[in-house]
Amino acid sequence: MRAYDLIDKKKKGEYLDREEIDFLIHGFVNGDVADYQMAAWAMAVCFQGMSMEEIGDLTLSMAESGEMMDLSAIESCKVDKHSTGGVGDKTTLVIGPVVASLGVKVAKMSGRGLGHTGGTLDKLESIPGFRTALSDRAFIDIVNSVGICVAGQTKRLVPADQKLYALRDVTATVDSIPLIASSIMSKKLASGSDAILLDVKTGSGAFMKTREEAEELAGVMVEIGKRAGKRMAALVTDMDVPLGMTIGNALEVREAIDTLKGQGPEDFTGVCLELAANMLSLAGKGNAEQCMELAKEAITSGKALETFARMVKTQGGDETVISDPFVLPAARYTLEVKAPAAGYVEHMDAQGCGIAAMLLGAGREKKEDAVQPDAGIVLHKKTGDSVEIGDTLAVLHTSCEERLRAANDRLLACYRIGPVCPPVSSHIFSYIS
Amino acid sequence: MRAYDLIDKKKKGEYLDREEIDFLIHGFVNGDVADYQMAAWAMAVCFQGMSMEEIGDLTLSMAESGEMMDLSAIESCKVDKHSTGGVGDKTTLVIGPVVASLGVKVAKMSGRGLGHTGGTLDKLESIPGFRTALSDRAFIDIVNSVGICVAGQTKRLVPADQKLYALRDVTATVDSIPLIASSIMSKKLASGSDAILLDVKTGSGAFMKTREEAEELAGVMVEIGKRAGKRMAALVTDMDVPLGMTIGNALEVREAIDTLKGQGPEDFTGVCLELAANMLSLAGKGNAEQCMELAKEAITSGKALETFARMVKTQGGDETVISDPFVLPAARYTLEVKAPAAGYVEHMDAQGCGIAAMLLGAGREKKEDAVQPDAGIVLHKKTGDSVEIGDTLAVLHTSCEERLRAANDRLLACYRIGPVCPPVSSHIFSYIS
Repeated sequence: MRAYDLIDKKKKGEYLDREEIDFLIHGFVNGDVADYQMAAWAMAVCFQGMSMEEIGDLTLSMAESGEMMDLSAIESCKVDKHSTGGVGDKTTLVIGPVVASLGVKVAKMSGRGLGHTGGTLDKLESIPGFRTALSDRAFIDIVNSVGICVAGQTKRLVPADQKLYALRDVTATVDSIPLIASSIMSKKLASGSDAILLDVKTGSGAFMKTREEAEELAGVMVEIGKRAGKRMAALVTDMDVPLGMTIGNALEVREAIDTLKGQGPEDFTGVCLELAANMLSLAGKGNAEQCMELAKEAITSGKALETFARMVKTQGGDETVISDPFVLPAARYTLEVKAPAAGYVEHMDAQGCGIAAMLLGAGREKKEDAVQPDAGIVLHKKTGDSVEIGDTLAVLHTSCEERLRAANDRLLACYRIGPVCPPVSSHIFSYIS
Repeated sequence: MRAYDLIDKKKKGEYLDREEIDFLIHGFVNGDVADYQMAAWAMAVCFQGMSMEEIGDLTLSMAESGEMMDLSAIESCKVDKHSTGGVGDKTTLVIGPVVASLGVKVAKMSGRGLGHTGGTLDKLESIPGFRTALSDRAFIDIVNSVGICVAGQTKRLVPADQKLYALRDVTATVDSIPLIASSIMSKKLASGSDAILLDVKTGSGAFMKTREEAEELAGVMVEIGKRAGKRMAALVTDMDVPLGMTIGNALEVREAIDTLKGQGPEDFTGVCLELAANMLSLAGKGNAEQCMELAKEAITSGKALETFARMVKTQGGDETVISDPFVLPAARYTLEVKAPAAGYVEHMDAQGCGIAAMLLGAGREKKEDAVQPDAGIVLHKKTGDSVEIGDTLAVLHTSCEERLRAANDRLLACYRIGPVCPPVSSHIFSYIS
C-alpha cells in the first residue's frame, strides 16, 4: 500500500476502506506517511467528502491511535457531553454538577480553549488551587466519590487527532464536516463514556455559521457514536449571541455558581436545563419531561451546587468560592462601554465579543499564550434590549490597562443599535438522536 | 501575508495575484512556506484550477526563482523545442541538427528521463565520450560555433520547479494542467530562447491520454509563452504507438542517425520534418511549405548529419558513430518476441512498451537508478502491420539475461492481434499558435 495511491483515490472521489484508513493514520502517527501527504489527502477530503462508513473508520482509527480510557471501574452509566464551542459557553460547569447530583456519573476530559476565549479547564483553573492535571487513578476515584471530575486530556489520548488537527490548522483544511466530526468523536470514544450528548452551536459566534451545517455535523457525529455502540443525542443550540452575561474565565465561574443557585440569566439557565435533561434522559432517568423536572429540582434543592462544591474541594480548589465570590481573581481595571446611540440592540457579533475578550486577556491568540483568569466582559445589554445613549452596554475587565481601548472599540463594533426590536428567538433549534 | 490565507483562497476558487503567488513560491524555495502547505495548495489547484493570469504569474515566479540563462551572446534567433515525452521519442536528435544546419541556433537544456524510458541526455550519453555537463560559457560557445548544443539543466535553473515537482510527485498532484504547463514553461522561459516549439504528445504512451487534454495543455503553454514575449507554436502529435522502430538509448541514437541519413522509419521521419519545419517557421525562415522544403533538403544534402557529427565531436563524443554504429554499446543478450497469433496488430499499448524497455534497463524505475545505454527494444511490427504466427514482433536487447523473460511477457501484453486492419491515422493532430 502506498500513501500516494490513497491520496489519489480520495482525489478521484473513491472510498477508502478501514485497512487503507489505518495505513494512513498509523503511518502519519509513526512518521511513515509524510505530513505533506496527509495535507494533500485532507485537502482532497475537503473537496470530495467521505462516506459515513469512511468517517466511522477514520474516527475509530484515530481513537485507537493512543490510550483508550478504561472507565469500567466506575459503576453505573457514564455520560459525557461535548460542546462545539462558543462565546460565554460555561454550560459544563452547571450541567455536570446537576446530572452528577442525580447519580449520573460525569467523567469529563476537557481541552484548552482553541478559539478566542478560554476552555472549560481555563475557567475552572481560575478557582485558586483547582487542579485539572490528574492521574487516571485519581480521575476515576473522584468520579466514583463525587460523581463528577473534570480533568485535562492527556497527551496519550488520540495522538493521531492531535497531529492531524495541528496540520489542518495550518493548511486551511479545518472546515470539513467529516474531519471535524471524526476529530471530536475520536476524543469522545477514547474517553470511554457510555453515552454522549453533543451541543452543536450555530450562529455568529460558532464555527458552524448556519443551522443546516450544524445539523449536518450533529447528524454525522450522532451516527459515528451509534456505530461505535454509544447512546447518542445532539442539540443544535444558538450561538448568535454570547451565552449568559459573562465572557472570561473567573467571570464565567461566578455566573455558573449564580446559576447553580437559581440566580443565573434566563437564556443560560434555559440552555443548561435543556442540556442537563437530555443527559439525564440518555442515562435512562426518564422521559424528557421527567428529566427536566429532575434537573430543575437539582438546582432548587441546592444539591447541584453542593456537588459543584465537592468537586472543587476534591480537585484542590478553594470551595469557599461558592459563598464568597471575592475568592476569584479580580481585574485591576474596568471600563464601561457606553451606547453611542438609542434604540434596540438589533444584532450582536458574538465572535467579535469573543475577540474583544481575548484582547483583554481572556483567551489565547496563539496556543502558547497564557490566559488571564481575571480578564473578560460583563454584558449589560444583549440582542433585543432597548438602550439610551450613554447606557452601559458592557463592562470590560482586565489587569492590563493598555488593553482597554482596543477592546472597547472592538466590542462597540459588535453592537448594531437601531430602531427595530428583533423577534425573540429560541435558544434550542433542534434535537437529533 | 500568510500561506494559510492563500491556500484558503484557492480552496474557495478565488484568484491569487502576482504578489501572492511570489509569496508562496519564494517562501517555498526558502523554507518559509512549509511543504505541507504547498501540498495542500497544489491539491486545491487540482480541484479549482487557475486563471490564465495566475498560470502566467506562477510560471514567471518559478522561472525567476533561480538563474535565468542569458543567451544574448548568441547571435540570431534561438529556437527551443520541448516534447511532453513519449516512448521512442528521439526527435530532438534529428530536428536539432536539421534546423541548426540551416542557421537557426538551438541552445537546448534537457532533463533526464522521468518516465519509463531515458531522456535526451541519456540517449546522447550512450555515445562514448559525449558530455552534457557543460559550463554556461562552453554551452554558449558551442551554440555559436556548431549551431546547436544539448546540455543538462543546471541545478541553479528553476529551483522552485524542481522542489514543487518533487512534492507533486508524492502527493498525487501531478495531473493538473495549470501545474504541468507552468512547470514546463518555467524551465523554457529560464532557458532564454526567443522562440519555443512545443510537441504535446497524446495517446496510450503519453501523459495526456486524450486529444482534448493535449490541446488544452498546448493552448495554455502557448499563451504563457506569448505573455512572456516569446514566439510560440505547438503541435499535438500521436503517441498511441511508439515513435519509430526503437526504444532505448543507444538503439534510438542509431535510428536518429539513420533518419539523418534519409533512411529512417516513415512515421518518425514525418514527425521530425513537421517539427523541424515549424521550428524554422518560428525562426522566420519562410512559410510552412518553404520550411518543409528546407528541412527535407537539410537531410538529403547531408548538412544536418554533418551538424550532428560536429555537435557530437564538440561535446566530446566519438564522431565515428556516424559511419560506424558499432561504436555504440551493444547488448550482450537479445531475444526475439514471437507473434502468438495471426492477423493484424490492431492496437499497441505504447506505455506498456516503455515499461518493457525499462524492465530491460533502458529507463529508470526510481530517480536514483542508472540507465543501461545498450538496453531496449527494436520493433519489427507496429499497429496496422499484418503478422503470421511465429513472426518476430520485436527484438529485446539487454546485458542482464535474467531480465529477458519479464520483458518478453510485458511486451507481448502490449500487442493486440486480431482480424481487423485498423485505419491509418495521421501522426500530427493539431497546430496551435
